[in-house]
Amino acid sequence: MKKIKFSLLPLAVILFSIFSCQNSGIESNDSSSEEILKNELISWNDGVAKNTIQEFVQKTTNPQSPDFIPEGDRIAVFDNDGTLWAEKPYYFQLDYALFFIKKEASKHPEWNENELIQAVLADDMKTIMASGEHGLIELVMYSHSGMSEDEFSSHVREWLNEAKHPQTGMKFTDMVYQPMLELLDYLRSHGYKTFIVSGGGIDFLRVWAEEVYGIPPYQVVGSSIKAAYQEVNGKNVIVKIPELNLINDKAGKPVGIHQYIGKRPIMAFGNSDGDFQMLEYTTSGKGPSLGVYIHHTDAEREFAYDSLSSIGNLKRGLIEAPIRNWLVVDMARDWSLIYPTN
Amino acid sequence: MKKIKFSLLPLAVILFSIFSCQNSGIESNDSSSEEILKNELISWNDGVAKNTIQEFVQKTTNPQSPDFIPEGDRIAVFDNDGTLWAEKPYYFQLDYALFFIKKEASKHPEWNENELIQAVLADDMKTIMASGEHGLIELVMYSHSGMSEDEFSSHVREWLNEAKHPQTGMKFTDMVYQPMLELLDYLRSHGYKTFIVSGGGIDFLRVWAEEVYGIPPYQVVGSSIKAAYQEVNGKNVIVKIPELNLINDKAGKPVGIHQYIGKRPIMAFGNSDGDFQMLEYTTSGKGPSLGVYIHHTDAEREFAYDSLSSIGNLKRGLIEAPIRNWLVVDMARDWSLIYPTN
Repeated sequence: MKKIKFSLLPLAVILFSIFSCQNSGIESNDSSSEEILKNELISWNDGVAKNTIQEFVQKTTNPQSPDFIPEGDRIAVFDNDGTLWAEKPYYFQLDYALFFIKKEASKHPEWNENELIQAVLADDMKTIMASGEHGLIELVMYSHSGMSEDEFSSHVREWLNEAKHPQTGMKFTDMVYQPMLELLDYLRSHGYKTFIVSGGGIDFLRVWAEEVYGIPPYQVVGSSIKAAYQEVNGKNVIVKIPELNLINDKAGKPVGIHQYIGKRPIMAFGNSDGDFQMLEYTTSGKGPSLGVYIHHTDAEREFAYDSLSSIGNLKRGLIEAPIRNWLVVDMARDWSLIYPTN
Repeated sequence: MKKIKFSLLPLAVILFSIFSCQNSGIESNDSSSEEILKNELISWNDGVAKNTIQEFVQKTTNPQSPDFIPEGDRIAVFDNDGTLWAEKPYYFQLDYALFFIKKEASKHPEWNENELIQAVLADDMKTIMASGEHGLIELVMYSHSGMSEDEFSSHVREWLNEAKHPQTGMKFTDMVYQPMLELLDYLRSHGYKTFIVSGGGIDFLRVWAEEVYGIPPYQVVGSSIKAAYQEVNGKNVIVKIPELNLINDKAGKPVGIHQYIGKRPIMAFGNSDGDFQMLEYTTSGKGPSLGVYIHHTDAEREFAYDSLSSIGNLKRGLIEAPIRNWLVVDMARDWSLIYPTN
């Protein structure tokens, strides 16, 4: 891989977005447990949150209800990092970038002079985090561009199998939220189509979202760089090129929904102000709709953070949720289980 | 609507692509006829074409077959203009543009000085066609940009209901190919997901593809301009902006597939050299795959054209199909019916 240059500001912006928004991998619910969980929200404690979701699904799927929604219009969108799986102490996609660099460094003597890469190789997280947006973008760049589809997928798969969370020691794929897995199943069993709408990298998400969440690649929306169909070693293949395609965060989320899904959702789930516009767009259609924030309140079982956190910052959302009639799920209060293996 | 300026070459390119590639509307197969047709290809005459398709579907869906493909990977992609519905004497999306301009002209006194628009109002097709790419782009532009999602949809719906084909007098939505409707149903009933991958405008297609083909908006890939989420009259809405997003034609089709679908298809159907790379990409994966060209050979019941036609030009595809083992469907020979209402 050649040394990557940062001559384009938009490139930096989009790659920061890829990094800074949402993703990474999990692996858990096999088909037998899926069967058991179908139609059930067993890890949701009784209360307003569970009731609100169930009542919404019931009224939109009952043909006798004035709020009935035809199956084709039952679109539910989910942010990923912090909504479907954890995002602390840093977005899990950064961990993939670090993993990739460590694994590939020996093949790249030209990296020897790169201080940031040397920090990665020395597990010097202080220097890495201190490198700021620009440094983190650079690391994510190294782990993404210049590869074919297949090469990229196999690198991500290797990470999924081997990497462990720096604090819990769990596989990243075990840090998905069990109540959300149940919710995905519950919605699908009621004729809803479930989509990921993440600020994270679309290619990264698509490698594992089908296995982990049951969400196929064409129902994953994320930030992306461009791609080209071009000859490599005598064969035409898809190659990623370092140029902005979509920043799927904040006001970019409704745009991503418009471009990829083409219908306004009726349910939206997020956990940060990066999801605000997605919830707003979802809940400003004509018919019934439900916007939901997952509030990280459980320092004991997961992490507790909101308006002061740099990752997953939730400030405006908490202030406006009551005014806009959005549901706020309190993880400590509303979830009896966090991770599937707890 | 303001007068549109053409200061950007890429804009012109993309809009020509939107115009010049594939789309427009049909409306026919109600659910009862769909039921009857399920699993059947009754408008396909017995022969190599029908056999090849059926054998491919059988071997990829039989769990005992060495060529078995898991349901999640059964992706079939279809070009639209000339593959799912007719495209002569001009792409049907141009007809929508003309329809829109005639309808809206009285609201736009500023259009009085535009010669091309005056030609549209005078039904002067000679001048319109002579205006070339640039003129046609301009007309399509007038019918697309500066509108919200909902406004655009309602204009297209009006056209679908009222417009008639200039030669057949049929509704455009009656000029879909009955054998292809049957094929879509047949594939879906065998666990295939069906996608449109069209050079035409994605927003235009999404208005009617679900009703006509049973293909939901998130399974439609097409050319597109960008969009923004911004305030209009005090409400945040999606507004189309005249800037290139994707030219989904030729080498752009594999890119569109990569970006929107995220998996390599195993079946691809097209009718022109604009579909060549889509067929190539589809048939260069590791497992079983099938590339199919629909060859317009039936001047009596439809239109006959290939290597000399400016619309739907098919030259390289015909030459290389035998070498690449792609199936060529001969409409005159292989289809017993063209349109549903014949």
